[in-house]
Amino acid sequence: MSAPKKVVLAYSGGLDTSIILKWLQTEYGCEVVTFTADLGQGEELEPARKKAEMLGIKPENIFIEDVREEFVRDFVFPMFRANALYEGLYLLGTSIARPLISKRLVEIAAETGADAVAHGATGKGNDQVRFELAAYALNPDIKVIAPWREWDLSSRTKLLEFAEQNQIPIAKDKRGEAPFSVDANLLHTSSEGKVLENPADEAPDYVYQRTVNPEDAPDTPEFIEIGFEKGDAVSINGEAMSPATILTQLNEYGRKHGVGRLDLVENRFVGMKSRGVYETPGGTILLEAHRGIEQITLDSGAGHLKDSIMPRYAELIYNGFWYSPEREMLQALIDESQKFVTGTVRVKLYKGSARTVARWSDYSLYSEAHVTFEDDAGAYDQKDAAGFIQLNALRLKLLASRARRHKG
Amino acid sequence: MSAPKKVVLAYSGGLDTSIILKWLQTEYGCEVVTFTADLGQGEELEPARKKAEMLGIKPENIFIEDVREEFVRDFVFPMFRANALYEGLYLLGTSIARPLISKRLVEIAAETGADAVAHGATGKGNDQVRFELAAYALNPDIKVIAPWREWDLSSRTKLLEFAEQNQIPIAKDKRGEAPFSVDANLLHTSSEGKVLENPADEAPDYVYQRTVNPEDAPDTPEFIEIGFEKGDAVSINGEAMSPATILTQLNEYGRKHGVGRLDLVENRFVGMKSRGVYETPGGTILLEAHRGIEQITLDSGAGHLKDSIMPRYAELIYNGFWYSPEREMLQALIDESQKFVTGTVRVKLYKGSARTVARWSDYSLYSEAHVTFEDDAGAYDQKDAAGFIQLNALRLKLLASRARRHKG
Amino acid sequence: MSAPKKVVLAYSGGLDTSIILKWLQTEYGCEVVTFTADLGQGEELEPARKKAEMLGIKPENIFIEDVREEFVRDFVFPMFRANALYEGLYLLGTSIARPLISKRLVEIAAETGADAVAHGATGKGNDQVRFELAAYALNPDIKVIAPWREWDLSSRTKLLEFAEQNQIPIAKDKRGEAPFSVDANLLHTSSEGKVLENPADEAPDYVYQRTVNPEDAPDTPEFIEIGFEKGDAVSINGEAMSPATILTQLNEYGRKHGVGRLDLVENRFVGMKSRGVYETPGGTILLEAHRGIEQITLDSGAGHLKDSIMPRYAELIYNGFWYSPEREMLQALIDESQKFVTGTVRVKLYKGSARTVARWSDYSLYSEAHVTFEDDAGAYDQKDAAGFIQLNALRLKLLASRARRHKG
Amino acid sequence: MSAPKKVVLAYSGGLDTSIILKWLQTEYGCEVVTFTADLGQGEELEPARKKAEMLGIKPENIFIEDVREEFVRDFVFPMFRANALYEGLYLLGTSIARPLISKRLVEIAAETGADAVAHGATGKGNDQVRFELAAYALNPDIKVIAPWREWDLSSRTKLLEFAEQNQIPIAKDKRGEAPFSVDANLLHTSSEGKVLENPADEAPDYVYQRTVNPEDAPDTPEFIEIGFEKGDAVSINGEAMSPATILTQLNEYGRKHGVGRLDLVENRFVGMKSRGVYETPGGTILLEAHRGIEQITLDSGAGHLKDSIMPRYAELIYNGFWYSPEREMLQALIDESQKFVTGTVRVKLYKGSARTVARWSDYSLYSEAHVTFEDDAGAYDQKDAAGFIQLNALRLKLLASRARRHKG
Repeated sequence: MSAPKKVVLAYSGGLDTSIILKWLQTEYGCEVVTFTADLGQGEELEPARKKAEMLGIKPENIFIEDVREEFVRDFVFPMFRANALYEGLYLLGTSIARPLISKRLVEIAAETGADAVAHGATGKGNDQVRFELAAYALNPDIKVIAPWREWDLSSRTKLLEFAEQNQIPIAKDKRGEAPFSVDANLLHTSSEGKVLENPADEAPDYVYQRTVNPEDAPDTPEFIEIGFEKGDAVSINGEAMSPATILTQLNEYGRKHGVGRLDLVENRFVGMKSRGVYETPGGTILLEAHRGIEQITLDSGAGHLKDSIMPRYAELIYNGFWYSPEREMLQALIDESQKFVTGTVRVKLYKGSARTVARWSDYSLYSEAHVTFEDDAGAYDQKDAAGFIQLNALRLKLLASRARRHKG
Repeated sequence: MSAPKKVVLAYSGGLDTSIILKWLQTEYGCEVVTFTADLGQGEELEPARKKAEMLGIKPENIFIEDVREEFVRDFVFPMFRANALYEGLYLLGTSIARPLISKRLVEIAAETGADAVAHGATGKGNDQVRFELAAYALNPDIKVIAPWREWDLSSRTKLLEFAEQNQIPIAKDKRGEAPFSVDANLLHTSSEGKVLENPADEAPDYVYQRTVNPEDAPDTPEFIEIGFEKGDAVSINGEAMSPATILTQLNEYGRKHGVGRLDLVENRFVGMKSRGVYETPGGTILLEAHRGIEQITLDSGAGHLKDSIMPRYAELIYNGFWYSPEREMLQALIDESQKFVTGTVRVKLYKGSARTVARWSDYSLYSEAHVTFEDDAGAYDQKDAAGFIQLNALRLKLLASRARRHKG
Repeated sequence: MSAPKKVVLAYSGGLDTSIILKWLQTEYGCEVVTFTADLGQGEELEPARKKAEMLGIKPENIFIEDVREEFVRDFVFPMFRANALYEGLYLLGTSIARPLISKRLVEIAAETGADAVAHGATGKGNDQVRFELAAYALNPDIKVIAPWREWDLSSRTKLLEFAEQNQIPIAKDKRGEAPFSVDANLLHTSSEGKVLENPADEAPDYVYQRTVNPEDAPDTPEFIEIGFEKGDAVSINGEAMSPATILTQLNEYGRKHGVGRLDLVENRFVGMKSRGVYETPGGTILLEAHRGIEQITLDSGAGHLKDSIMPRYAELIYNGFWYSPEREMLQALIDESQKFVTGTVRVKLYKGSARTVARWSDYSLYSEAHVTFEDDAGAYDQKDAAGFIQLNALRLKLLASRARRHKG
Repeated sequence: MSAPKKVVLAYSGGLDTSIILKWLQTEYGCEVVTFTADLGQGEELEPARKKAEMLGIKPENIFIEDVREEFVRDFVFPMFRANALYEGLYLLGTSIARPLISKRLVEIAAETGADAVAHGATGKGNDQVRFELAAYALNPDIKVIAPWREWDLSSRTKLLEFAEQNQIPIAKDKRGEAPFSVDANLLHTSSEGKVLENPADEAPDYVYQRTVNPEDAPDTPEFIEIGFEKGDAVSINGEAMSPATILTQLNEYGRKHGVGRLDLVENRFVGMKSRGVYETPGGTILLEAHRGIEQITLDSGAGHLKDSIMPRYAELIYNGFWYSPEREMLQALIDESQKFVTGTVRVKLYKGSARTVARWSDYSLYSEAHVTFEDDAGAYDQKDAAGFIQLNALRLKLLASRARRHKG
């Protein structure tokens, strides 16, 4: 790979990406463009602008954007249509944000004439893979620089030295090492590393930042009603809202009731197991409610097919293949199933849990006429069941006859 | 089907199966053998003996058995190795009990020279399918009688008339109609019908019989440690126990903390949607803990394969295909994966939820040496990730080049 | 089911469906509408009109249609995009024609005010299921009459008696029983029953009607070039043609070279095994060529996903679920994959086989630059493979370490 | 990676691996052990011994073994139980041989105290992955040396120079470059590269080495009968034979009749497409016959499950994951299905094709009593089909009602 001339950096404004910014300038002598996105991580973005300016980035090379609506509308919601869970439990909060960042990096590179993009993910994690696969899928000729895989700033001490040598301001609380590493966006906050590294040790309370402890949550349950249209949430308690607003509100409900905590040991794409603590307050409610509305509006053939491909879909997103033909094919399948997933679900929030307690829809396939224990007025002829069973049993009988024949 | 001469009836001792007993005698003039199983449903069995005797069943034709250990060891535990959930949520508590009952019915038929078996399931539900497929799979020549599909006792009034005409005692509280229908065994209690028939109405509190309301559960969390060997639970808090004892104890923990309630609209095999309220206190804890121990002892390739076939496995059990070659093939696959699923999980129980908070094992695949944020002493070369990404990206780049080529 | 007033009958003009026509009139006293379709079965349709008239059908109740283009365009081609094979070998020639016939029956019922449709399939086969599931999926209130499951004309003798009593002319060669049963359309001819019933006996030569015996095929191979656009065949040897024309031509090529014979024992949806002899001359060539063009235009992720869902897709069609949400979902997935499946394949036809020998496309993903044994000018860095392997190996090493640890 | 001290080399005795041998000695100054296996590639092994000795290998460090029986029994046959085809067409002849070679390399390393193994696969292909994943899965601490990824002998000229400088004899016909690259074993011969690199060019005749051109095959078909026990071939024409003998004989039948040629563009695990010409004469017959015997002895539920996991199983083998938990899990599933796959198949060989024409078995599930067009004496009640269809249709009717409701 020839040296990059102009690099678009995914820039948070924090110490680490500021060091990367400087390192790119000094190591490659290249022009740096910064991209700072508001994905709902809950941090001010303007300080990032000031810091970038201070580090010598030209104003026209500083891109700061609020991408929350796009994030929820085009990434989070399509994923939730699938009820996606990685390894049965993880709501993919980090995974789903990476493709959007890469997409904007590549687009800004095209706008600014940059030939490279850079990110601050390490060489051990999944994020490097997600950033880079997305970037290459969108621009096959882009260069991707992953400083953590290249430089020799392998200890905290060296990083701080580099910062000092390069006049990068170090916030007081960044002198010591953080007790764990955090990623946050509108969908979730993840924590990993350091104090969490031994999966036999319970996660300390201070790791949780996004939700109250269920023990401290209100003693009274709260009920909310989530409206859906074609598989996407569109309202809360009857009030229509934009995608990002809905997720923001659900986050607040979830936070208050301690919903969405997960302590997980998962399998990284790069081959090792890792332990993470996830808080996905709104997403956990959303998954529950989406399943609730599907229960009455989705046909069993459709639902079982969706369930059967879900693990693969989740794995693709986890592994960084959002921009791949197979993810798009699965999305086409999933979206096709959601045409009538429209209606309302009532969810009960209480002390860490979110449970569907009622659901209704104009598009319901639930037929009280068929299922009733009362007289069904001929909707269903119980005698049909005899034939149904006989034909389903036929092959089993033939197997049993063979088994008997060959026993003695 | 020629008329049966001797029928083994799955007999609970309750009103409905007593009516069936009598109906079989009068309709077919056949000898009846009763089989009453203790599956952990929490009812005395001896009254069933007395009632059977009173209805004219010869003592040698009355079979009363405690099958709880067999139920948990040979049915529940194998299923839990798969983390089986039907339609994402249902722990299959009713489905998994039916094959065992059918197996004993067929065995007792062989022992007593009976040519038929009978059950009390209706023509609208899944249980008829489960009973009958299992029976035919075990004896292709057995006759199965399903009185609910045959007789004309189509209303509560007619049933009670029949009972009175035939001197079947009717408990006072059975005069009126039950407000919903119940099935129970050591794994779960299910409720459906009547007051539950409208899925838009929240289930009334009195439907729940097996667990305390989470609001009424203790205000302090409780932690338990579940030991596993080869995928099966073998101890609680360090004390080794038999399968049924473990499940019984977990049920008590779950009951106390309000764990395992589920309000679900599901798709029946016979083609309609139905709404059920399930309480699976111990099973819900067991699933959580089993996932917990798999997190550190199961390889990702193995785990992802298991996850991908799980929906099919669960569907087979739900649909009544326990005794089918494909269920046995999937079981072979699952069991093969569990050889090292041995270790201990700590679970926190609180107000309706059960969450893994720690897990450890001599067979752990978790490698702190690899995952650490600290210096890993060369366990993992971050530069390998670059090659890994490049080769995973190659096809995406070729796709992107094609897309660009054909855009203009 | 109340008695039908007006029935649309799938009418071939042959003896069996003429008997059904008369039986419907006499049994139900209902008006009969006939639908006779040209699906490419190779028979004149006008005699069917005359016969219907002779049996008292009003001219406005006689529908005769050439549906060959619709058949290939909307049914055969979508299915071939999936490379669908039932049980690894069967090209689904009968299965794919049934939904189209049902669709027209239901549409004609709506046009003519009929409340029922009728078909001539027996109660043992798959076709009854296919006809009826499709009909119900398109009109939930339609009545379906399947005379073979209802009447008591259970022997050839009784059928002929009924025909004679009702003045239905019996062609001389229909007096005796056919030595096997045949279904034909533009995609295939199937033969089953009678002389074919023992799968240990080789099928007699006279069973094959649609292809020459490979031993009698030309001694010289023939090469044809099939052009594809978005997964569908659009030309032969450079000449653009309509879907039905292409399949007709491919049938002629296949017939001449003895391509597409299959002797199969398959599993029917109704639970039994059956033996069929299939001739699918054009379809066999088409499958081979479609795979050939996919080889260079389809990404591996896309292709492997398609392969993994294909058996389910084929099973759905075989079982009669063409008009089901899950088939449509899978179709959406498949169609999404075909956007660039455009190019040309050269196929060699010789003595019973059709083999791809060359393929090219403007949309090819094949990169000689990457794969070449010669100098690749830096397109691919072989050192990347080391990292790729190391990370893929990581979990296997951790497994091996565990195995070693626990051996001694 | 520290320098290896003693290396076990997969040594063919040919020019390339001789150069590797010398390069290992000179580059690493390490002791070399050679392993030469007879996998049925059809070459004498003793010349390899002489050449190794001449290159300075101590006699006790030269391992020459006939592993054909192990190859077929423990690798080829288990794979054929799955009817494994990669990308619908490829019989995995190269893929399945690599794990066995790696297994012996690792075992010999343990016996001889070697700390490394080496292979002659390039950095662009799949074989490097297969060799190395297998080696690491069997010994997590083994070093693997892949000279083609390390050295700078990047052109034919440099290789020949190195050979001359190191007194490695160069066979006259090896001076020029081979027009394509070959791999062979008892299962197949593959050819790729050079003259085959353009998939739009038909493969020249001289590429095919293992089978006669179908045009030159006998004008008269030949029929053979293959006996199976539990999924494995055990006899030909009634004569019991060992696994390797059977495959050898089937190869001869296939060769003679031009069976098993395949021209394929496939997707390599390392991300690129590649074109190969494969000849798998005996394997092609074996697959056909195995499917033939499964048709009558395998239940549909079992067969459909097998079919659905086959693509994944094949992909695992292709990608080099023979020694992985998931392949072993799938194998357990597959083997479970083969318990009754016992019987005999008659296959017709003619001019490039192998077709099942008859099959019979004591374990057949085919029931003429059920399927017959004649009177079935009550084996099957056609009326059952009505109920079967009604219940399968129920959900489709509910869907259709909804669709109608919302149309207006």
